[in-house]
Amino acid sequence: MSGAAAGPSLTDKRINKDVPVPLYYQLKEILLEYIQNAQLGVPIPPELELCELFGISRPTVRQAVNELVVEGYLERQKGRGTFVTRPKIIREYHFALQSFNDEMKQKGLSPSTQVLEFATVHADDRVAEKLQLNRGSEVVKLRRLRSTNGEPVLIVLTYLPSKRFPGLLSKDLEQNSLYTTLAEDYDAPVERTVRTLEARPAGEYEAELLRITKGAPVQYIETVAYLADGIPAEFSIGSYRGDRNKFTFELTRRETLPS
Amino acid sequence: MSGAAAGPSLTDKRINKDVPVPLYYQLKEILLEYIQNAQLGVPIPPELELCELFGISRPTVRQAVNELVVEGYLERQKGRGTFVTRPKIIREYHFALQSFNDEMKQKGLSPSTQVLEFATVHADDRVAEKLQLNRGSEVVKLRRLRSTNGEPVLIVLTYLPSKRFPGLLSKDLEQNSLYTTLAEDYDAPVERTVRTLEARPAGEYEAELLRITKGAPVQYIETVAYLADGIPAEFSIGSYRGDRNKFTFELTRRETLPS
Repeated sequence: MSGAAAGPSLTDKRINKDVPVPLYYQLKEILLEYIQNAQLGVPIPPELELCELFGISRPTVRQAVNELVVEGYLERQKGRGTFVTRPKIIREYHFALQSFNDEMKQKGLSPSTQVLEFATVHADDRVAEKLQLNRGSEVVKLRRLRSTNGEPVLIVLTYLPSKRFPGLLSKDLEQNSLYTTLAEDYDAPVERTVRTLEARPAGEYEAELLRITKGAPVQYIETVAYLADGIPAEFSIGSYRGDRNKFTFELTRRETLPS
Repeated sequence: MSGAAAGPSLTDKRINKDVPVPLYYQLKEILLEYIQNAQLGVPIPPELELCELFGISRPTVRQAVNELVVEGYLERQKGRGTFVTRPKIIREYHFALQSFNDEMKQKGLSPSTQVLEFATVHADDRVAEKLQLNRGSEVVKLRRLRSTNGEPVLIVLTYLPSKRFPGLLSKDLEQNSLYTTLAEDYDAPVERTVRTLEARPAGEYEAELLRITKGAPVQYIETVAYLADGIPAEFSIGSYRGDRNKFTFELTRRETLPS
């Protein structure tokens, strides 16, 4: 709409003083829309300009801006102003079942992986249930820290049935994607996934690995991935930095679930 | 496995001191599995018993339990012990496009709705884009607080094209579901939705309405709902209490998105 250095227009926006929604929150919603239409590094108007534009007080403006700074949408730079930060990484789960590596590369982000744990263990009740195994069956346990452009974005703990994937422990899963390894080395492409998402506060260990504050929101995602024959190949538990990730899903009314 | 009053067994679990994963975090993962297999109100073993069972120190046990209390999975009762709390409400988005009311009733929860805002406004850039309207077009803005069993779980802000839904403002959306109203009164059943999820910290207004602490994780979900003719009927922004909701999605490799 306007030049690249300036942000989108705010002049057609209004705050409604007759509804039971706090003024700061209305401004926050307006600024969120502004941010979503702005480029990285675009400034938002100075606080006094926002006060005048919307006929609201400075503490009200500050509250809206503060919350957007805490949420990672805006960044204050001393003496320079307040700027739009990088957008979150969007994982487009409706397109296909892409590997983390492939999807990040497609988005122009450089992915890297650190393997923290990689061993054979015995399935406990939950793992056995998800993988449709007997309790105590041998499973491969794999814990990875995944980064884009050197910044950690995800811790993922994965369990796979040892019997279906012999020799998996010898694979290099720092260099290669797990889904690609399953497809190419074991002729086991993942066909279907069921994912459960929760917003949770980061615990100390997650916070440390993801370099966020303890208690900061984490997108916690449990995945069961199935092969074409309907057999579960993977049960994984991912902790994604809330401030760096968002997830898109598509659903249709026709869709029904066999299990 | 065991009686209803006792919890699941912990005796087959082990903590591995040879991996670079903190002991407290390993215990937390073990307790999470225990919680997911336990009934509401089942106690976890006393701290000293956990110390002995896993050969770890009391501060380590306490750190694991503390994080699970903060995350809402466990509840301490003075002088009685630490107990498993209510499970989160699961919204099964893979089954169908059910209304909040229908889905909650099916789960045996009593839904209620408070309308906070309900008015005609002009679409801003973002709303216009999502609803494929011209900027400035008339849209209905609806903000609702939704509860189950009297406890607020969700704030949802919805925009709908006024032209497609004449007289919508006269409908009672505290008693009736929006999706049912669209289907029955406007012959406009929702056929497809695209949802984007983010884990975000609650701002002051959200925290107050949802009765949670400011900064506590909120599951933020943007939805665009399409009718059978591919026309978007609804753009909504939901803020769900992170500690009371989780969301399930199913994806298959075949799925592709037209837009």
